Amino acid sequence: MSQTPRQPVGRSAPTSADVARLAGVSRATVSYVLNNTAAVRISEPTRLRVRAAAEELGYVPHAAARSLRAGHTRTVVMPSARLPGGPLPVRFYDEFQSELRRLEYTVVEYGGVGLDGDEAARAWAELRPVAVVCPGATQPSAYGVSLLRRSGARAVVTLGPHPTRGAHFLALDERRIGAAAVGHLIHRGRRAIGVVVPREPGPKLCAELRLEGARAAAEGSGARTVPLPMAYEEESAAALAARWRATGLDAVFAFDDAYAMLLMRALQDEGVDVPRETAVVGAGDLLLGRLLRPRLSTVRVDTVSGRRLAELVDRVVREPAAEPEHHDLMAARAVHRESS
Amino acid sequence: MSQTPRQPVGRSAPTSADVARLAGVSRATVSYVLNNTAAVRISEPTRLRVRAAAEELGYVPHAAARSLRAGHTRTVVMPSARLPGGPLPVRFYDEFQSELRRLEYTVVEYGGVGLDGDEAARAWAELRPVAVVCPGATQPSAYGVSLLRRSGARAVVTLGPHPTRGAHFLALDERRIGAAAVGHLIHRGRRAIGVVVPREPGPKLCAELRLEGARAAAEGSGARTVPLPMAYEEESAAALAARWRATGLDAVFAFDDAYAMLLMRALQDEGVDVPRETAVVGAGDLLLGRLLRPRLSTVRVDTVSGRRLAELVDRVVREPAAEPEHHDLMAARAVHRESS
Repeated sequence: MSQTPRQPVGRSAPTSADVARLAGVSRATVSYVLNNTAAVRISEPTRLRVRAAAEELGYVPHAAARSLRAGHTRTVVMPSARLPGGPLPVRFYDEFQSELRRLEYTVVEYGGVGLDGDEAARAWAELRPVAVVCPGATQPSAYGVSLLRRSGARAVVTLGPHPTRGAHFLALDERRIGAAAVGHLIHRGRRAIGVVVPREPGPKLCAELRLEGARAAAEGSGARTVPLPMAYEEESAAALAARWRATGLDAVFAFDDAYAMLLMRALQDEGVDVPRETAVVGAGDLLLGRLLRPRLSTVRVDTVSGRRLAELVDRVVREPAAEPEHHDLMAARAVHRESS
Repeated sequence: MSQTPRQPVGRSAPTSADVARLAGVSRATVSYVLNNTAAVRISEPTRLRVRAAAEELGYVPHAAARSLRAGHTRTVVMPSARLPGGPLPVRFYDEFQSELRRLEYTVVEYGGVGLDGDEAARAWAELRPVAVVCPGATQPSAYGVSLLRRSGARAVVTLGPHPTRGAHFLALDERRIGAAAVGHLIHRGRRAIGVVVPREPGPKLCAELRLEGARAAAEGSGARTVPLPMAYEEESAAALAARWRATGLDAVFAFDDAYAMLLMRALQDEGVDVPRETAVVGAGDLLLGRLLRPRLSTVRVDTVSGRRLAELVDRVVREPAAEPEHHDLMAARAVHRESS
């Protein structure tokens, strides 16, 4: 607490030299002890003396210095991806991070917000990560991947709808969600199918892919699909419901369960009978979707587990593959309840 | 792509020396150009030549080297805090990060999962951040704060129910949510008030504080509160509803809107009249809470904006305060709809 904050940290922070002086050992010994270097044998009393001195001075090793010495880091960079509408659940991220920590990597979330693919790749490269994992909307280009590889990243793993040259690719294809929903509605005998497209920017990419999948599923089936822009607001849902009968639609895939619950309520308030007049299907299998009457039909999405992804990252870091690996890690299937 | 991944990065990654050689300038010039050092005048043709060489070689500056040269970083560390039930909305984090990026800080999210307060503080200190912001369940102790300060952090900002010595403190007091809910129910004439306590580990800290606030609000009012453990599952809600009449309760504060929707549905399925027999209040003002009938009463929570927090961090970094600042940044008020 005693430092003058105006001073640069390099001077104000205690150094390994201070620890070495206090413990009466060499700086190398301090570094061996505090970085748990297994290669070097150091007596337990010395270890304890060094740890006590570091404790007393409040010294911690400088990650930057360590990574410069080592020539590489154990850092895995992942863009912050908290945008809603993505296929990966919260627990995926926690599981992924805990598992990588168990494997002695440091997970750093960085630069998912407001950077485009190549800006982000450059920012990540500056941290000299050993691996980069891109689950979000921010995906590096082939150039970004080569930049990362040349700056020392042993693995670049992208999760999304499209592969990137030079990167390992885990397919999370949102199109399947739209295809499963519309396939279910056609199977239930519906022919004029609305597809809700959220007006919010967050789910934009998701929404386009789900719509694409919905259209593909309808193709050649005799059914037609109609995109329906809608905001996640009662007013927007009410406006859409008010002109529902004019659209002549007999079904709707409402992007996800939240939009579906909102639209189904608005349709019921307009006197539209669900499912007799209009079938409604969401996606995500939210527990709350079972609380409305009729119970909401949905699409259940199964994705890669955080643990499995962490193991893949560790494997490709330890044994870099000649060729990038491609795995398909998302399954989507309709769950029929009462609303369709 | 040409590097042999087995080689340490230090050798395989292009260095500023390579860029200097290719551009025919000194390493210092490369560093001035690529780190946009304003102090030094360098001709535009030279800048362009250096950038072109860096581009060609795929060279990016090494953040670690730069921070060692500078003696400090512009890194703001924040633990990943994606656990549900917290008072801060997703858009808070995005706003906070975008604003700090605009102020030319680098936000790194790190170590919120599976590290206790002091382990986390040590891990953060290794990154030599200029500031640390702790919004989640992971809060450093007074020792952790001093460790961070001594390693050069100019500001440690904690957000939560309790202050930590030496750290700036933004009060986000979950107790107010419980107090607002129970105050409302008492105002509506209820006297036997259940308080749902989720069985899930995620919301544990939140739940304890909301219960504490609920109890405090009931004290001396003649009303009593009864904690009701419940899991976020239909079975658990049904079991609680099945023994509802035996409890003699005439109201329930159900932790948040999601638990409230689940429990209200289960009570209705048991034939319990909401609100006549039992009033139900949630928290969070979810749009979905307005979709059930009766419409769910709730507690609206207003917290600090990401922008305001970013500005506070920047100010205390630029002008370190003699004394840690305390601000109160959460308001909670009941919103009466139909379920209470």
